[in-house]
Amino acid sequence: MSDLAQSAGPCERPGMSAAAPVIILVEPQLAENIGMTARAMANFGLAELRLVAPKGGWPKKGVREAASGAVHILDAATIHATLPEAISDLQYVLATTARERGQMKRAYAPDDAMADVASRQESGQRVGILFGRERTGLSNDEVSLADAIVTFPVSPEFSSLNLAQAVLLVSYEWRRAAGLARQPFDGAMTAPPASREAVLSLFESLETALGQAGFYPPEKRLGIIRNMRDRLHRMALTEQDVRTFRGALRALTRRVPHDPS
Amino acid sequence: MSDLAQSAGPCERPGMSAAAPVIILVEPQLAENIGMTARAMANFGLAELRLVAPKGGWPKKGVREAASGAVHILDAATIHATLPEAISDLQYVLATTARERGQMKRAYAPDDAMADVASRQESGQRVGILFGRERTGLSNDEVSLADAIVTFPVSPEFSSLNLAQAVLLVSYEWRRAAGLARQPFDGAMTAPPASREAVLSLFESLETALGQAGFYPPEKRLGIIRNMRDRLHRMALTEQDVRTFRGALRALTRRVPHDPS
Repeated sequence: MSDLAQSAGPCERPGMSAAAPVIILVEPQLAENIGMTARAMANFGLAELRLVAPKGGWPKKGVREAASGAVHILDAATIHATLPEAISDLQYVLATTARERGQMKRAYAPDDAMADVASRQESGQRVGILFGRERTGLSNDEVSLADAIVTFPVSPEFSSLNLAQAVLLVSYEWRRAAGLARQPFDGAMTAPPASREAVLSLFESLETALGQAGFYPPEKRLGIIRNMRDRLHRMALTEQDVRTFRGALRALTRRVPHDPS
Repeated sequence: MSDLAQSAGPCERPGMSAAAPVIILVEPQLAENIGMTARAMANFGLAELRLVAPKGGWPKKGVREAASGAVHILDAATIHATLPEAISDLQYVLATTARERGQMKRAYAPDDAMADVASRQESGQRVGILFGRERTGLSNDEVSLADAIVTFPVSPEFSSLNLAQAVLLVSYEWRRAAGLARQPFDGAMTAPPASREAVLSLFESLETALGQAGFYPPEKRLGIIRNMRDRLHRMALTEQDVRTFRGALRALTRRVPHDPS
């Protein structure tokens, strides 16, 4: 193997952060959940997926379709016969569970868990997160192999979270905790506010037009005008906004022959 | 209709918060996504689902299975021919989108958006959140009917979020912003820490046993003992922990006849 090939390790796959936690599904059954898990991981920059004894074998029919393009994660996924084998190279392991297990383990909310994970990763620790079977979750024995628990702040009246949805929440919170969450675009004003001169000239045009149209009795003019100015200020007008409104006002006040059609 | 029936409005369905936002799917196609949307809503206490012109008609085959028990949300879902009809009774509308639309609208991250929504709901505003078609999202025209945008901090390399996953993130953040997110159980120590007397007696037993076993040369005794105490302190021992360790120590130091089998 050339030096070049050796240097192209898993850390250099696109979308992968070297420090992202490993997602470990224990005996997952449905192709759709495994595919959606891969997609959710890719959405938030996780890349390493391990499957412990997937029910019905591997690969599964339909899993690639469910991954909706995140097939690089499925292709790189590793299969393990047992949970201890799947976690042996890790230094810190979290177990996700909806139920109290009578184990004296710290139980984190997803955001707090991922804040802890992100700080461990800064010091070079390899972290894995366990997710159990679709119907029965993780066994107490499996939970006992983890350092701590992650649990989700779901409604007590409907607490059954889908497997891929649980992976999504953890992945989302990891990306935020790792400081990688950036909005794809921001909603800042794309144009600066209009100059006060432009705003004042719009006020003047509007007030003149409304006066000529008999919109207010003279004694109420000042109060109505102040309220109107207030409404326009609320829009935080740009130069383009002012030009558009002045054009609309000109069109509305233009004397055109009445069209009876 | 009796007074009793009238008073049993939608706000009183189990798991529903009167103030939770309305989820509006515009021309959703896949039964699985609609069912998973209902499930995600139920997970975080949302209940009101509106479907605008679902592709292929309604109800859809397989949608109840995908809801995995959240069928009360599907049964109460309303169908609307157009988006304006679906939002007419609302006072504030958010559009979810992955793409910049060239519209000068505020674009929120899910947590900030839901903080704003929760504060609007405190003052009695009815809020709706729009989600677009699986493949093409919302049209620019549809986005222009919303007050502001919600967008997700996804990886730029794999930004395509599944419809039900997007609903899940918004629902999760709404529950947190509304102050309803409680962990289903806490990881606090279920037993109080051991009394210092018990801890000291464990130290003494361990140190005696290790001394008799010749674990350390006399000149290193004190340093090794201090480190050992330190390790035990890290566990934050309970009374039960102390009893268990003392029992294990007794078993290990019991003189039993050697069994050669």
